[in-house]
Amino acid sequence: MSAKILDGRSISKSMLSEVKEQAGAFQETWGLPPTLALVRGGDDPASVSYAGMIERTCNGCGIAFQSHTRPADTTQAEMVALVEQLSADKTVHGIIIQRPLPAGVEPLPLIDVLNPLKDIDGAHPINAGRLAQFTFVDRPIDVGPYLVPATPLGGLELLKSYDVEIAGKHAVIVGASNLIGKPLAFLLIQNWATVTVCDMKTKPLSDYTQQADIIASVTGVAHLIKADMVKPGATVLDFGFAKLGEKWVGDADFEPISEIAGAINPVPGGTGPMTNAMLMRNMITAAKWQAGE
Amino acid sequence: MSAKILDGRSISKSMLSEVKEQAGAFQETWGLPPTLALVRGGDDPASVSYAGMIERTCNGCGIAFQSHTRPADTTQAEMVALVEQLSADKTVHGIIIQRPLPAGVEPLPLIDVLNPLKDIDGAHPINAGRLAQFTFVDRPIDVGPYLVPATPLGGLELLKSYDVEIAGKHAVIVGASNLIGKPLAFLLIQNWATVTVCDMKTKPLSDYTQQADIIASVTGVAHLIKADMVKPGATVLDFGFAKLGEKWVGDADFEPISEIAGAINPVPGGTGPMTNAMLMRNMITAAKWQAGE
Repeated sequence: MSAKILDGRSISKSMLSEVKEQAGAFQETWGLPPTLALVRGGDDPASVSYAGMIERTCNGCGIAFQSHTRPADTTQAEMVALVEQLSADKTVHGIIIQRPLPAGVEPLPLIDVLNPLKDIDGAHPINAGRLAQFTFVDRPIDVGPYLVPATPLGGLELLKSYDVEIAGKHAVIVGASNLIGKPLAFLLIQNWATVTVCDMKTKPLSDYTQQADIIASVTGVAHLIKADMVKPGATVLDFGFAKLGEKWVGDADFEPISEIAGAINPVPGGTGPMTNAMLMRNMITAAKWQAGE
Repeated sequence: MSAKILDGRSISKSMLSEVKEQAGAFQETWGLPPTLALVRGGDDPASVSYAGMIERTCNGCGIAFQSHTRPADTTQAEMVALVEQLSADKTVHGIIIQRPLPAGVEPLPLIDVLNPLKDIDGAHPINAGRLAQFTFVDRPIDVGPYLVPATPLGGLELLKSYDVEIAGKHAVIVGASNLIGKPLAFLLIQNWATVTVCDMKTKPLSDYTQQADIIASVTGVAHLIKADMVKPGATVLDFGFAKLGEKWVGDADFEPISEIAGAINPVPGGTGPMTNAMLMRNMITAAKWQAGE
């Protein structure tokens, strides 16, 4: 095995300890901790488990956690009213609207009333738009404050933490999703990568991945990326998480790829923990903006 | 010469005649024509000439044109107040904030008060974000109404008008600008292209363009794209406009490329006239939304 392991668990730990310091400083200055409100409905097991994970992460780093859980028969109007109230509440700094929503509740009206400055998961179109309109890191333009979805931001941080070169490199993103693929494309473009976005109609996918200096795969299809699709020395950023038999695995066929890649993250223990850390970092950013820091 | 010529002038003419019908129908229903307000400051010659061109296009297709020109020493607050007033004015359906702005006037505060439903040039981040969050054409999600910058929209229409295949094809965009390159990337992703975005650090650029089924170049560098950078049969969409000696030319070295490309637009007469037509079509869209049609 020759690839460098992009250890998201360890990087995220040191980031969370920085967050903890910043959360403490915030509380000292303003008399209340940065406070995250999680909005959800019903009792989908994955949703319950995700909420529990966010709560534990908050507890570990000095961020207050509020759960706003509504029954499965909550109406659209009630959910809108809840998000509106939290958006206006000066003691709440970050809001996550968790899917799946109760049956019959559409996400768009909730996002419409979400305060973009509290949108720590970057779901509001104004945040997506400001990310899109930002230019290159070394010649920024003023687009206003914005928050980036935590998962792609975590992927970028993981690359940076291991000094993976991005500028002038070819990054191939497999999957054009709103929460990962597309915002990641912008983050990499900002950092001067040449970026290719592939989707389900890209055939053959290997034509693109074989050219990539960085492959970022966000499909959730277990072991979609095989060793013969990877250029020797390339970096593989794996955002997948799927069950293969009894095992949780990523989009990348880890063992054989790690023989030839230059760097790869494990799954679990790669981009997942980075997502949590970035969500908490977004909390600090959001809380400071709202406090006028 | 073998390439099909993507004749933006002729396509835009038929689009403008459709717009004229729709503008007439709008006026009949609502008692006023769709009305465009152009905001500018100072007397930059290119800006004056562009404004004149928009005015003539409006006049030709039944759209009312208002010029809101302020002196070169207008302040930020005065410009903000002007955009605010036009955003609230129910007799104005579309607003263009033209650059360059007067010295010392920042664009961001103007865009912040621009009504996104009147943003016919797609400059507001909420429009950029909704474009980014829209998924594929054949499985749209509801992201709310949005307007796309006229130039990339015109490029897409030009491809569609000549039945250039997009789904599953590799589109290489040269230039990651906010008004053309990045929104065009989204439009092509929506239509299932595999999209590569190149920038100034992409080296060698020919490695990418030679693979492209569609090359879209948006740099304004005269004859950046040479014949040996184009795959035989590829489509070249040229958004450039620059002076080479005495002649206005595009990003593509037209004559030699048209010997080998499958299709190419001339400059002038390609994407330029399409921009005007799309701006007018955006006017109809915006006017109808605001009227509740």
